[in-house]
Amino acid sequence: MKNITAPSAVAKNTATLLITCPDRKGIVAAIADFLFQHNANILHADQHQDAENNLFLMRVEWDLAGFSFDPAHFSQHFAEVSKRFNMEWQLKLSQKPLRVAIMVSQYDHCLADLLHRHKNGELVCDIPLIISNHRDTEALAKFYGVDFQYIPVTKDNKAEAEAQQFALFAKYEIDLIVLARYMQILSPDFVARFPKKIINIHHSFLPAFIGARPYHRAFERGVKLIGATSHYVSEVLDEGPIIEQGIDRISHRDQVEDLIQKGRDLERVVLSKAVRWHIESRILLYANKTVIFD
Amino acid sequence: MKNITAPSAVAKNTATLLITCPDRKGIVAAIADFLFQHNANILHADQHQDAENNLFLMRVEWDLAGFSFDPAHFSQHFAEVSKRFNMEWQLKLSQKPLRVAIMVSQYDHCLADLLHRHKNGELVCDIPLIISNHRDTEALAKFYGVDFQYIPVTKDNKAEAEAQQFALFAKYEIDLIVLARYMQILSPDFVARFPKKIINIHHSFLPAFIGARPYHRAFERGVKLIGATSHYVSEVLDEGPIIEQGIDRISHRDQVEDLIQKGRDLERVVLSKAVRWHIESRILLYANKTVIFD
Amino acid sequence: MKNITAPSAVAKNTATLLITCPDRKGIVAAIADFLFQHNANILHADQHQDAENNLFLMRVEWDLAGFSFDPAHFSQHFAEVSKRFNMEWQLKLSQKPLRVAIMVSQYDHCLADLLHRHKNGELVCDIPLIISNHRDTEALAKFYGVDFQYIPVTKDNKAEAEAQQFALFAKYEIDLIVLARYMQILSPDFVARFPKKIINIHHSFLPAFIGARPYHRAFERGVKLIGATSHYVSEVLDEGPIIEQGIDRISHRDQVEDLIQKGRDLERVVLSKAVRWHIESRILLYANKTVIFD
Amino acid sequence: MKNITAPSAVAKNTATLLITCPDRKGIVAAIADFLFQHNANILHADQHQDAENNLFLMRVEWDLAGFSFDPAHFSQHFAEVSKRFNMEWQLKLSQKPLRVAIMVSQYDHCLADLLHRHKNGELVCDIPLIISNHRDTEALAKFYGVDFQYIPVTKDNKAEAEAQQFALFAKYEIDLIVLARYMQILSPDFVARFPKKIINIHHSFLPAFIGARPYHRAFERGVKLIGATSHYVSEVLDEGPIIEQGIDRISHRDQVEDLIQKGRDLERVVLSKAVRWHIESRILLYANKTVIFD
Repeated sequence: MKNITAPSAVAKNTATLLITCPDRKGIVAAIADFLFQHNANILHADQHQDAENNLFLMRVEWDLAGFSFDPAHFSQHFAEVSKRFNMEWQLKLSQKPLRVAIMVSQYDHCLADLLHRHKNGELVCDIPLIISNHRDTEALAKFYGVDFQYIPVTKDNKAEAEAQQFALFAKYEIDLIVLARYMQILSPDFVARFPKKIINIHHSFLPAFIGARPYHRAFERGVKLIGATSHYVSEVLDEGPIIEQGIDRISHRDQVEDLIQKGRDLERVVLSKAVRWHIESRILLYANKTVIFD
Repeated sequence: MKNITAPSAVAKNTATLLITCPDRKGIVAAIADFLFQHNANILHADQHQDAENNLFLMRVEWDLAGFSFDPAHFSQHFAEVSKRFNMEWQLKLSQKPLRVAIMVSQYDHCLADLLHRHKNGELVCDIPLIISNHRDTEALAKFYGVDFQYIPVTKDNKAEAEAQQFALFAKYEIDLIVLARYMQILSPDFVARFPKKIINIHHSFLPAFIGARPYHRAFERGVKLIGATSHYVSEVLDEGPIIEQGIDRISHRDQVEDLIQKGRDLERVVLSKAVRWHIESRILLYANKTVIFD
Repeated sequence: MKNITAPSAVAKNTATLLITCPDRKGIVAAIADFLFQHNANILHADQHQDAENNLFLMRVEWDLAGFSFDPAHFSQHFAEVSKRFNMEWQLKLSQKPLRVAIMVSQYDHCLADLLHRHKNGELVCDIPLIISNHRDTEALAKFYGVDFQYIPVTKDNKAEAEAQQFALFAKYEIDLIVLARYMQILSPDFVARFPKKIINIHHSFLPAFIGARPYHRAFERGVKLIGATSHYVSEVLDEGPIIEQGIDRISHRDQVEDLIQKGRDLERVVLSKAVRWHIESRILLYANKTVIFD
Repeated sequence: MKNITAPSAVAKNTATLLITCPDRKGIVAAIADFLFQHNANILHADQHQDAENNLFLMRVEWDLAGFSFDPAHFSQHFAEVSKRFNMEWQLKLSQKPLRVAIMVSQYDHCLADLLHRHKNGELVCDIPLIISNHRDTEALAKFYGVDFQYIPVTKDNKAEAEAQQFALFAKYEIDLIVLARYMQILSPDFVARFPKKIINIHHSFLPAFIGARPYHRAFERGVKLIGATSHYVSEVLDEGPIIEQGIDRISHRDQVEDLIQKGRDLERVVLSKAVRWHIESRILLYANKTVIFD
């Protein structure tokens, strides 16, 4: 299978810095000066100020060609600036793609979509692992050359099943877990182990229709638009920070099955955007919200 | 002020029949045959079957030129067919436009929009009355030549205020009451007096953010889309049958004021569509839902 | 691989009748009476009148359980009505699904999407054949169990290549040809052989950017929205009847590659809707336009 | 008439700097350092790099409270930086709102919309002048307290009419001319006098349906979406830089009048956004395109 990957994605050798700190004068000057002093060729820079929370948030990406030091030593070089402004920061190198695990149950539309986008170069990451509590998607995983691990989950074996999952995440050095219509509720322990590292797709326009069977409830309520929401998973069900939402129009002619069908298109697009933005370091979290530097 | 009215709207002399009945074979044949026997020139016909509730719903509009009897006597001519199929029906004549009252508080964007659309011939109805608990929109009402009645409402005078309102509705022979950002909650008595005759605009994507300050709550939740919903008013707040919904995209750059501003555009469009569909007899209600024959 | 097919799609045993004729009084009465006399249980009926062209267009679908005659003899039973109103009509039985061939070049996103939807029961048709002028999609075809025929096309062999294609269409008894980003222009002879039976996806919002490289030209023009259009193929390039269109918002931050990427999502959805509507007999053609009975 | 103006808009005392220059290292550092040295409290900053044209574009807005010098002397203070990087720049002070003239013919929906938004504080500018070649909108202008000038235009008097218009623009010190469905083609001389200072609304999705009667042509072509485009006026008709576009869905049920009616809602929103972005200094022009810093 030939990969029709965008050459830019392949050739790219960049660093992306995400910063959050209390807002005050001089931050941009300090960062821009630091990068200029070290001969960074800035490709993209975007920033956001949240007045209510007095926060400064920034994303800056630069070409590593000509940069004056090895980015492996970024921490020590950036220490003075980051301490001065009390920054939280993370650095992402394009040549070290994130490692992503996908968890899925029987509905395979999101999984098939993510794998196809990955093959086509749209999602620049590694996807070494698929975990499912059913065998339905095994052939699909095999077709795309991804390891498939079947871990059935029942009321009784949930803790062991999750222990197996944790072991696999460790073994495969997973950075991000994507719940691509995985129909099991994660334990609080699971969620606590991977803060800001689990992305879920919920098949409604949150906060409408939190919980089970949202399309059925949307149909009963007689709404004129249905939605889908991708979000980070946090302790409270469907209450984590929203990354992206999409909607589609429905009419009285649409039955529940039509809502489900139209919803699949939303889920695909809304989940894949969240994954892409995460692996490209475009998301910053604050106050249970997301900033998307697109 | 010259009216740039669509000539078709002016010249039109049609009858529109809305029908609801239990679904069974032969309904369409009976209606179509009835209309054909009386030489009706059908302009539009649309129907819907709700399998779950075993309901048949239909809208048919025909030109009255050449129709074989005076539509004032429709009831007696149609009696046999309507009894045979146990129909509920209503007939609307284009030459007898509905009479609409608008209730408004201080925000005037929906009111200004409705009045402008009315002047331009987009809303073919009479608007003889505006009621407000503030004086802010009096000049606007006057500009468009509509009677303006100022009825302040407090906790203590609510019953009297509503009594005044009822008297005005009677005097002006009002068929439809539009709440164009009227910021008072109607009493159960008010709602019960005008079933399926009060249309409200709620500034959220229902059922998300029911109740007060929806834009503020949408901002706090960090949603990526905001919405507006027009609906019939029923006993339970914001739970009536939804007529239309719209959404707009927001980002982290949008503050609460931006949501409010973007929301105004949604509210205008979503409310005006509901009013237009109602006055053109395009809406049928069943099971707390609407069928829109557009 | 387990098929998660909607049970309704499987169990269905219905007939769908599409009718076009000059508009005059009594058509609906005649059709409804005919169906009632033969004990048809109507599931859906929709009609449209085009005043400008004096045309009546209708789609009616009924359950064949209890229908009074074998639909194989529909033509003779319906002859009197169809002659009286000078009707063109076609009957589609749900138990005889259309046979669809997909033609594709190197970009495989539309193909992968169609095959996945088919597997999931969203497209109720047979897909026995994929033809490509490249080998890139052979593995994908094999995965979904569809015959793959590699027919390279050059300036010199075009006529022979098309002759091979025609032979395959005949052998596989193809009813509909879908060009899923097939990057060869069909000969006039090809187009003439399959009137209203070839569906193409064009990657722009037609009639803007007719012809080659539409995303590049959209980028150069600085548009704020990009689009995709599915349409029937007719003699003149990109001028055939439009079936569906979709758009997505872009900004100055989007480069040509971003347009191409966003466009892929549009193309998938817009093409799959056209195919679904065609195989469900929801499309009627007149005056180089389509009526979509959705 | 009470103005419900957002308090922030009233109280605001900010400077907004727009910069375009050849891209090279150190620009952001230089600007950020300049602002930091002069004690600017940055409220918003956004930048864009166009790799193809090697351009750097930036918008930065800061609070003038505490700024170290009178912005009237900005030019001399900023001279060193702006020369070093060969910058084109413009400074806009929130306390000196732009002065806008609106030109209109008979359709008044865009005019009514702009005036209403202005009254409500959504458009922070002065609107001292309305020019029309018809008298239809005179009452509306009067209602909002704006001077109305009636200047009829014929084939023969066009030059004199434009001379009158120029005199009015000078007298009223107009900064921006908005063509709110003004149905006369401006002379090349007119266009050349006000480069980047005339905003038009075209009632199609450009570049589709350039020129006259776009809704009629969209109807004939059978498109499934209609659009509207706001753009700066340049020498070639409908070819100027696009600022914003919007679309709405139509179906076979929509006649030309329905397209026109739906289009009005698009035109209103799309034109008002362009005007707002212009008066808030959010638009930069390059290569016949716009960057919108929203």
